[in-house]
Amino acid sequence: MADSFVDPELSNSKRAWNEYFEAKVGFRNYWYPACFSREVQNGEVVVRKILGEGILLRRVRGRVRAIRDRCLHRGAKFSDKVECYTPDTITCFYHGFTFNWEDGKVETVFGAPESAVIGSKRRIKTYPVKEANGMVFVFVGDEDYAVPPLAQDVPPEFLDQGIALEGVDIVIRANWRMGPEGGIDEIHRYLHRDSPLLLYAKKSIPLGHAGASGQLEIVEGPEGPKGIIDRFKPERMFWDGVIHGKVVVSGVNFGPQPDSGKHKRTLYTSMWLPACLKVVSFPDNGFNLFEWYVPIDETTHRCFMTFTTACTNEDEVQKFKEDFKLKWKPLAVDGFLMQDAFARESIQNFYQNDRAWLQECLVEDDIMLMEWRKMCSRNSRGVQRPSHTV
Amino acid sequence: MADSFVDPELSNSKRAWNEYFEAKVGFRNYWYPACFSREVQNGEVVVRKILGEGILLRRVRGRVRAIRDRCLHRGAKFSDKVECYTPDTITCFYHGFTFNWEDGKVETVFGAPESAVIGSKRRIKTYPVKEANGMVFVFVGDEDYAVPPLAQDVPPEFLDQGIALEGVDIVIRANWRMGPEGGIDEIHRYLHRDSPLLLYAKKSIPLGHAGASGQLEIVEGPEGPKGIIDRFKPERMFWDGVIHGKVVVSGVNFGPQPDSGKHKRTLYTSMWLPACLKVVSFPDNGFNLFEWYVPIDETTHRCFMTFTTACTNEDEVQKFKEDFKLKWKPLAVDGFLMQDAFARESIQNFYQNDRAWLQECLVEDDIMLMEWRKMCSRNSRGVQRPSHTV
Amino acid sequence: MADSFVDPELSNSKRAWNEYFEAKVGFRNYWYPACFSREVQNGEVVVRKILGEGILLRRVRGRVRAIRDRCLHRGAKFSDKVECYTPDTITCFYHGFTFNWEDGKVETVFGAPESAVIGSKRRIKTYPVKEANGMVFVFVGDEDYAVPPLAQDVPPEFLDQGIALEGVDIVIRANWRMGPEGGIDEIHRYLHRDSPLLLYAKKSIPLGHAGASGQLEIVEGPEGPKGIIDRFKPERMFWDGVIHGKVVVSGVNFGPQPDSGKHKRTLYTSMWLPACLKVVSFPDNGFNLFEWYVPIDETTHRCFMTFTTACTNEDEVQKFKEDFKLKWKPLAVDGFLMQDAFARESIQNFYQNDRAWLQECLVEDDIMLMEWRKMCSRNSRGVQRPSHTV
Repeated sequence: MADSFVDPELSNSKRAWNEYFEAKVGFRNYWYPACFSREVQNGEVVVRKILGEGILLRRVRGRVRAIRDRCLHRGAKFSDKVECYTPDTITCFYHGFTFNWEDGKVETVFGAPESAVIGSKRRIKTYPVKEANGMVFVFVGDEDYAVPPLAQDVPPEFLDQGIALEGVDIVIRANWRMGPEGGIDEIHRYLHRDSPLLLYAKKSIPLGHAGASGQLEIVEGPEGPKGIIDRFKPERMFWDGVIHGKVVVSGVNFGPQPDSGKHKRTLYTSMWLPACLKVVSFPDNGFNLFEWYVPIDETTHRCFMTFTTACTNEDEVQKFKEDFKLKWKPLAVDGFLMQDAFARESIQNFYQNDRAWLQECLVEDDIMLMEWRKMCSRNSRGVQRPSHTV
Repeated sequence: MADSFVDPELSNSKRAWNEYFEAKVGFRNYWYPACFSREVQNGEVVVRKILGEGILLRRVRGRVRAIRDRCLHRGAKFSDKVECYTPDTITCFYHGFTFNWEDGKVETVFGAPESAVIGSKRRIKTYPVKEANGMVFVFVGDEDYAVPPLAQDVPPEFLDQGIALEGVDIVIRANWRMGPEGGIDEIHRYLHRDSPLLLYAKKSIPLGHAGASGQLEIVEGPEGPKGIIDRFKPERMFWDGVIHGKVVVSGVNFGPQPDSGKHKRTLYTSMWLPACLKVVSFPDNGFNLFEWYVPIDETTHRCFMTFTTACTNEDEVQKFKEDFKLKWKPLAVDGFLMQDAFARESIQNFYQNDRAWLQECLVEDDIMLMEWRKMCSRNSRGVQRPSHTV
Repeated sequence: MADSFVDPELSNSKRAWNEYFEAKVGFRNYWYPACFSREVQNGEVVVRKILGEGILLRRVRGRVRAIRDRCLHRGAKFSDKVECYTPDTITCFYHGFTFNWEDGKVETVFGAPESAVIGSKRRIKTYPVKEANGMVFVFVGDEDYAVPPLAQDVPPEFLDQGIALEGVDIVIRANWRMGPEGGIDEIHRYLHRDSPLLLYAKKSIPLGHAGASGQLEIVEGPEGPKGIIDRFKPERMFWDGVIHGKVVVSGVNFGPQPDSGKHKRTLYTSMWLPACLKVVSFPDNGFNLFEWYVPIDETTHRCFMTFTTACTNEDEVQKFKEDFKLKWKPLAVDGFLMQDAFARESIQNFYQNDRAWLQECLVEDDIMLMEWRKMCSRNSRGVQRPSHTV
């Protein structure tokens, strides 16, 4: 009974990225966003599945706690009927097993208050939790793993002071790896040529960027986040699609901006372990995109599409909140990022078959994607396996 | 191609209850209830799936017959278009293969009336049938198995004279084993603390009973039904749920009844092979509960929730029928037994993964459940396997 | 990782028809109908799944072309968002990979117009296409297979001059093999005894024909289509269904026709590789039935129910078209052929389990069915395997 989500006969065929191939349900021992802070009001619980593990979140005296959504005793799902008699405890509706949100230990069993299991070392799994920029992060991994600081698992600058964040999360019916691979993909700009965002923001976008090792930077020092950075070369962009000598489609090119004399265009994309895309100057100058692809199970992931901007006072924050609702959500989320999500669902049909990974036809300009797979495989802290999800 | 519903690598890991672990789709060579007698009117057919086998029932001249719902020839389902030209026969709508309800032999083939298969030893499977207390029982097993009397496969007293029975059957989305395990479970009384039945019947119920080998009786003599009996000790009940020294929830305690001076409370539960719970004095004094958990397939079972009472004349029977409809159905079925069914569905998510059986955390007071698993494994007449269900 | 749709332990147990047993998703390297010509208007695309392969059809300057519905690069489905900038090309919506409909080669990549993949030997799969009688046929097989003429893969007379064809296609939820087996089945006439077609056309039908090797002709010469022909013997028909000496059901017998003095009745049925039934004089004298069972996947097939008749001018063609709509569609398709389709779905539940093939109980008169299985196994050009469908 092989403990792998991937057919064992196939998983050794791509040596440079075997770990990545095996990580069908994600990399283990990393921080992942679970939900937005605003969703975990005091006393309420939020139910999530992350890397195949059912997880329950609750704000306890201001701090969010996370536990496995499954009773130690006989596996009942707490979330089927939530019972919290005190701020610190959760009780299973079935036999009254009562656990502490902090350490997962058995406080009491209402139906068997003399059991030796009470106060013993048996406990439900708890997950380390951090909040940052209005998002709740959960560390999904082994209980004896030395939990790294959150800063190691988010892109650079995400934790900077004075930043406001707005965003949404959406469940996408595609394996999580379709996310990063579509995000650092040099040549998919073609997909966005008709996005309403471009028109609004006077943003130029070519049909593709040439990928070349010279513009690639791999960040994998012992400290800090690990990722790959792609700095596009303006001289290596393609603007016209030509068939038989005739231009049939073009990128969007607004030319240099009157105020700055510069092109308004994305020039810097990066992807970070475990699964976060950072795009500078998106959706517009002065903003960054951080997009997470959090594995739910083999065929779905939760995508957090978030934008940040520097704010110096509450008025600016309110203005950003308003802008997100009225402009960036319709134009940049629905009108741009969802184009990528659509494409991820379209290729899922192919990649869900493990054999497909050996049949794809990557090209020279997919270098970022190939480097991403290798970088992940080199640096992985572990791979989620079926036995982790029981 | 292992002929087991359970992963072979796992099924040898729990030696004392391997048979039970393997019996994912039930124990074979036992009597199971299929439906209520009232559902099989003369000439009509009832379609059921029991232990994964499609079964068709029909009342033929007053007696219920049961056959496999699948034509001998090419497997057409009789129930897709039922054709009975005579009381004794059923004809497959496809090629006119006509079988006798009694012995399953081929009476004729309309499209091939000279075939050697007619009157040969080839036949469809027939199932022994017995009716008792308004229920239709079917023996599901090997055709050469020496069919035991029904009395061996129902709890004691179920076949006593002068008993009336009322009940319902409901399909529950949980493996059948969740049924008996939840039924003999000492410490799940907590689940029922808010049942409307308690208030109506002035019935007391603690949060749990301590389980102890002293109160357990195992019945497995060569004759008669095999089961385990649990006689609760009143001095070993728990009434208050305490967290950090504070009572947060309590059982329901009406104290001694004014008329009898006694507590009104369940004191005697038992579970019988293949899968029937008996509870004395439920839903109220003078009644017994018999609840069956009949495997349909790996993830569902049909639950027969039935109550019996002694009746000496037809007026009493009518009164009981009326009471069932107006009181016991809403209060004891919907308001009490369905709480258990809800819990079974909640733990199914865990136990459907075979690995989970090795990860559960049973406690001392789960002794009945553990003894049930062992008793079943010791006495099993056979386990249903995938090849039986084709 | 066995490359078979059938359990390897079972697939060697029926030696005379192993190839057929393995062909769960069809025989490879044959011509199959994909759609009707009228469905592929100039410039429009039609999406089909045949033998598990997603296929896209488009009429290019009058000629229908067929390609695999999956981008070479990363497997996106072209059909999710069709982009054809020129008559000869299709462009993947994701990265602008642009392919030629004729040879499947990469014309350009909008996002990477300098890639070496352009003009290389890497290409998407294209399928040979032929149109005949208003139907579009696609050759599904290996790209290096020497494509045989269409005439080898359709029944005799189908390609004759001066024939008009009308018909429909319907997706049936049964494995494709249920089609031919139900079509050449001698003894299933019983199924049709209540068809409205019989009443209208004054057509007689017995309950069954005896099957005998004497009336069977096997056609498997090196040239031309391969099939088996069944010539019913009028003296070997059965008209009455008798149970215990009493007639309980009868075939439909209109006796000799007043005009011809002959019985109006089907006397000649044949089945041809890869999967086409031909019935002469159906639905009435002067017409032929050609019915194809085209595998979609393991559990469904697309059934083309078509009738042909000789027409000498356009008025006769128009009359036939009208008759099909008003008479043959309701009477012969909905009222007769759909009875077979219903039966196929009813036995699918049995045959979907590979073990069932070893448990069926065929009789003497199933000789045509058994010979069909053997003939297919002897002559098969290949079997569709899971690796072909990725």
